[in-house]
Amino acid sequence: MRRFTPLRFTNVTMEGTFWHERLETVLTRTIPSQHAKLIEHGILESLTLPQPVPPLRIPCNRHNFTMQIFWDSDVGKWIEAASYALSHRRDPVIEGQIDEITETLAKAQAPDGYLNCWYLGREPDKRWTNLRDNHELYCAGHMLEGAVAYFQATGRKRLLDIMCRYVDHIASVFGPKPGQKRGYCGHQEIELALIKLYHALGDRRHLDLAAYFIDERGRQPHYFDIEARARGDDPKNYWFKTYEYSQSHMPVREQTKVVGHAVRAMYMYAAMADLAAELDDPSLKRACEILWKDVTNKRMYVTGGLGPSASNEGFTQDYDLPNDTAYAETCASVALIFWAQRMLNIDCDGAYADVLELALYNGALAGLSRDGTQYFYENRLESDGSHQRWDWHVCPCCTMNVSRLIASVGGYFYATAADQVAVHLYGANSARLSIGGKAVGIRQVTDYPWRGTVRLFVEPEVPMKFALRLRIPGWARGEAVKINDVPLSSIRKERGYAVIEREWKTGDTVDLDLPMPVERVYAHPQVKANIGRVCLKRGPFIYCTEEADNPSSAIPRLRLPEDTAINEGGRADLFGGIVTLVAEARLAQTDDWNGTLYRITPPTADAVKMVAIPYYLWSNRGPGKMVVWLPEN
Amino acid sequence: MRRFTPLRFTNVTMEGTFWHERLETVLTRTIPSQHAKLIEHGILESLTLPQPVPPLRIPCNRHNFTMQIFWDSDVGKWIEAASYALSHRRDPVIEGQIDEITETLAKAQAPDGYLNCWYLGREPDKRWTNLRDNHELYCAGHMLEGAVAYFQATGRKRLLDIMCRYVDHIASVFGPKPGQKRGYCGHQEIELALIKLYHALGDRRHLDLAAYFIDERGRQPHYFDIEARARGDDPKNYWFKTYEYSQSHMPVREQTKVVGHAVRAMYMYAAMADLAAELDDPSLKRACEILWKDVTNKRMYVTGGLGPSASNEGFTQDYDLPNDTAYAETCASVALIFWAQRMLNIDCDGAYADVLELALYNGALAGLSRDGTQYFYENRLESDGSHQRWDWHVCPCCTMNVSRLIASVGGYFYATAADQVAVHLYGANSARLSIGGKAVGIRQVTDYPWRGTVRLFVEPEVPMKFALRLRIPGWARGEAVKINDVPLSSIRKERGYAVIEREWKTGDTVDLDLPMPVERVYAHPQVKANIGRVCLKRGPFIYCTEEADNPSSAIPRLRLPEDTAINEGGRADLFGGIVTLVAEARLAQTDDWNGTLYRITPPTADAVKMVAIPYYLWSNRGPGKMVVWLPEN
Repeated sequence: MRRFTPLRFTNVTMEGTFWHERLETVLTRTIPSQHAKLIEHGILESLTLPQPVPPLRIPCNRHNFTMQIFWDSDVGKWIEAASYALSHRRDPVIEGQIDEITETLAKAQAPDGYLNCWYLGREPDKRWTNLRDNHELYCAGHMLEGAVAYFQATGRKRLLDIMCRYVDHIASVFGPKPGQKRGYCGHQEIELALIKLYHALGDRRHLDLAAYFIDERGRQPHYFDIEARARGDDPKNYWFKTYEYSQSHMPVREQTKVVGHAVRAMYMYAAMADLAAELDDPSLKRACEILWKDVTNKRMYVTGGLGPSASNEGFTQDYDLPNDTAYAETCASVALIFWAQRMLNIDCDGAYADVLELALYNGALAGLSRDGTQYFYENRLESDGSHQRWDWHVCPCCTMNVSRLIASVGGYFYATAADQVAVHLYGANSARLSIGGKAVGIRQVTDYPWRGTVRLFVEPEVPMKFALRLRIPGWARGEAVKINDVPLSSIRKERGYAVIEREWKTGDTVDLDLPMPVERVYAHPQVKANIGRVCLKRGPFIYCTEEADNPSSAIPRLRLPEDTAINEGGRADLFGGIVTLVAEARLAQTDDWNGTLYRITPPTADAVKMVAIPYYLWSNRGPGKMVVWLPEN
Repeated sequence: MRRFTPLRFTNVTMEGTFWHERLETVLTRTIPSQHAKLIEHGILESLTLPQPVPPLRIPCNRHNFTMQIFWDSDVGKWIEAASYALSHRRDPVIEGQIDEITETLAKAQAPDGYLNCWYLGREPDKRWTNLRDNHELYCAGHMLEGAVAYFQATGRKRLLDIMCRYVDHIASVFGPKPGQKRGYCGHQEIELALIKLYHALGDRRHLDLAAYFIDERGRQPHYFDIEARARGDDPKNYWFKTYEYSQSHMPVREQTKVVGHAVRAMYMYAAMADLAAELDDPSLKRACEILWKDVTNKRMYVTGGLGPSASNEGFTQDYDLPNDTAYAETCASVALIFWAQRMLNIDCDGAYADVLELALYNGALAGLSRDGTQYFYENRLESDGSHQRWDWHVCPCCTMNVSRLIASVGGYFYATAADQVAVHLYGANSARLSIGGKAVGIRQVTDYPWRGTVRLFVEPEVPMKFALRLRIPGWARGEAVKINDVPLSSIRKERGYAVIEREWKTGDTVDLDLPMPVERVYAHPQVKANIGRVCLKRGPFIYCTEEADNPSSAIPRLRLPEDTAINEGGRADLFGGIVTLVAEARLAQTDDWNGTLYRITPPTADAVKMVAIPYYLWSNRGPGKMVVWLPEN
């Protein structure tokens, strides 16, 4: 069912300024600093067994649950991100660090292959007794993704062998056969990892196990009920009250509403999309399509952020998208990108690429500071200055999610099919593809995402016929294509892609012009938080207005009347050169209120210069107020 | 310092429809149903000692604190409200109920006079060890207010004697003498009760004890620190972290910001105003004036609601007045009325009466359902339909606060000074006053609060000269006065009151016309929640738009453009006859969104008839959505 295969990031060299800078920052600063943080916070140490029982480094919450139980996953995710870095540039220091972790895990692994350091170190007799809450398979999944990535980056197989032994153990414990547990993880993740393992080694059993976990999920009698009773608990006492939290409230193919914990949901949908493609399963594809429409049409922030609520780290009601309390976990936007990519490569439908790009340049990229060492876990769309970047988190999941995304960002740009090349994203880079066994180079020269003009050099090793699919982003206002400097008089478009089918030869150029005006964006009238408000968008970027460029006290009192012109402003001095937006906005006056709180004449307003910057860059110049959605009146 | 003495409610007979109906409802339905609830919830039973130790009727929270510890206060507040009812109409059933409670308390009282049933029943050796958290003096205060009210209503003194013995005990425990505790209650309340006791019995020691508690509050070394250390606790481990919570962070005369728990704050300020007047203390008066300006100019909802935050049941930052999460506890608006009355009668400044009236007709009155048996604890200014009236509450403080307020509402209408009568509030009633030892009757004939025309009949027992001060509400747009049908050509006004000084004789009439147009009210631009929004006010009423009169789905999508005419609509069929507001508003359309969440064209809107009702009446016709502040665009 999958028509397009994404080109691996290792075949794409990022050039120019935008992604090259982000990638270099992650490689040189983020990955090493994350390793230091894993040491500083005792996370690496926690893999060395035996472990002291009390004290915990992280205290338990009221449900007797400690986030320390995730620590294997954090190490796994770092190994994955670091391995992507190694794919760009081998580094004996990092490799030594990963090899050392590998040996620690080898020592920790139980004779039967079991390998969760929390349980082995503290409660070895309780393994596999609480899949609902305790993230055992989730941790296995992340460590497995790390092992696959390290193998792919270096060819070293020892960690992957260790994890394959663990997977064998998992496959023996879980399944439909007599004596097996018909279980699955409360936090989806291992499904994605098993599919990656299948892609790496080609062993169909791994794909089948992923499919088993997805198919079994939410069936009755409910595994989490059975498991709770086996522990001596009443399932009715479940602290979260509803299995919607983990999207296990019904079988996955019956689910039509995006509910519960946002990251769990996105990891699951991504795995469902993968399985739909791998197994040619139209029922999974259909479920994904319905859920996709639900989330993008009713439950997504304009930044590609997901999940308004802290209490479930996830979804609430349709159109509930508050700005100043937005949870919008970085991980959820990263995972939305994973899902979008998998949907995109089934049908090559630009609607998926539009959301992928939106989440990439906004909701996900906001999660990492300009200097590469600070983070957002929650991504507010409005702040009174109290929400700031932190240099680590009690639950550091987002830190490595954003570093593994950026370290592999080239992997989202291209995909190939039998006689086709799809260009999903634009940005300066050189890619090495293969069509029908022949090498094809594609080089993009562009100032994208700041400018919408892209020159592509197509360099097949021999002249060859194939269709070049160029994404025309949903935000583009008309587009123009030239081939070898000759304008195309008519452009054939399919689901958001311009399709140019011809015989290509080295030296061919394609010029794509995607007009990138500043747009005023409005939210559906049922989004209460944005009634009467507008936000600014240009190209892939959502803009915000923050204190560093504007008078501090003005931020919450700015208005942007409908007829205000918004101009582009180049700021070469800022963040390596960005396009700001500048407007003569209105500032509600407070000095004519005589100290009163209410009055019967409307507020007056004066003209004020307003400067907006891309949302992902906010909070890089010290703490301050910020707003995305501005009142029009 | 106090120039005016409020006329006791027992001298004011409510007539007409508005307050007569509310009062009858409270007398016939609320007071008896509250007694039944005190039984049903085990609250009355909790006074009978010995008490079983576990189980508690109300479980402890994470701070090992149970709200059951307030129960003496709930009984006391019910006795107070019921006694006010008895002042209107004696009732042997209610009197029997109070006498029975009295005997229970007599049995419970310790030989030394101590009388807190929680401590006596459960932790007798721990009395007076945690004034910060455990409400012992607060409970004493409410029971004392009940005892005073019952004595005044019936002349029966047994309960008052019991409570006076307890007060003697308290006076022996607390004070500046060697061996005494230099303490005061975490929840202010006993101060107000002691002043009432002083007014009832004239014993100056009671006034002095009230003054002691106020003067001692917030001094260093801090009593709550001393007390915590005596318990073996580290004061730094205080669960609420800051003594601002109980306004004991600094001496009261140094306080300039209204902070912390809203009800505690208002009870304290009311006691401070009382003491300023009783003791001629300009420093207390000045502190009250500063705090008054702070709260009314920066921290008060347009309804007279106080305290945006659930976490401290109180205040946060200036201009932080969210609508859909407004805490605005009913008790806080009731207590604001107490404070306002005390400020008003010092200077007879209409600014205090304006807030008193606002809180009375909106923030406080909203707390009781039309049928007199359901309540709001939190008073939201916007609801998605999930916030509803309840028939009792785990913390039932608000229920009896609103019933005691309404049962004594006549006491807020008039005040007298040597040769003056002030009319603070309007509404049909007959009042019996005394000026210079001579009886003066004043009768108001009016449809107030629905209409702004009032005819006053002045009936002195002999012709006599005095000044009649008629409040001209801040909302009135011009006013006209006629004496015996002759218009006054010029009106002498002092601080919001028209002053008419003449010799009055029986048969004199005064016609007051207070134009009561519908007003659009705007909030200060720093109130983020109300940017671009307007609310409707007419006379003393803030209006809201609720689902019962409007299409359910419309409520959150209504707009009221600046140029929309708002018309008055009489609804004789609704709630005994009210004035509604009717407008051709705009309803943002959703059917041209094609299911999308964001777009670059502004929402379109259609005309729609909108009906608004007085805020205090909302949620009397089943659950539904409601909004006070409407977007203008």
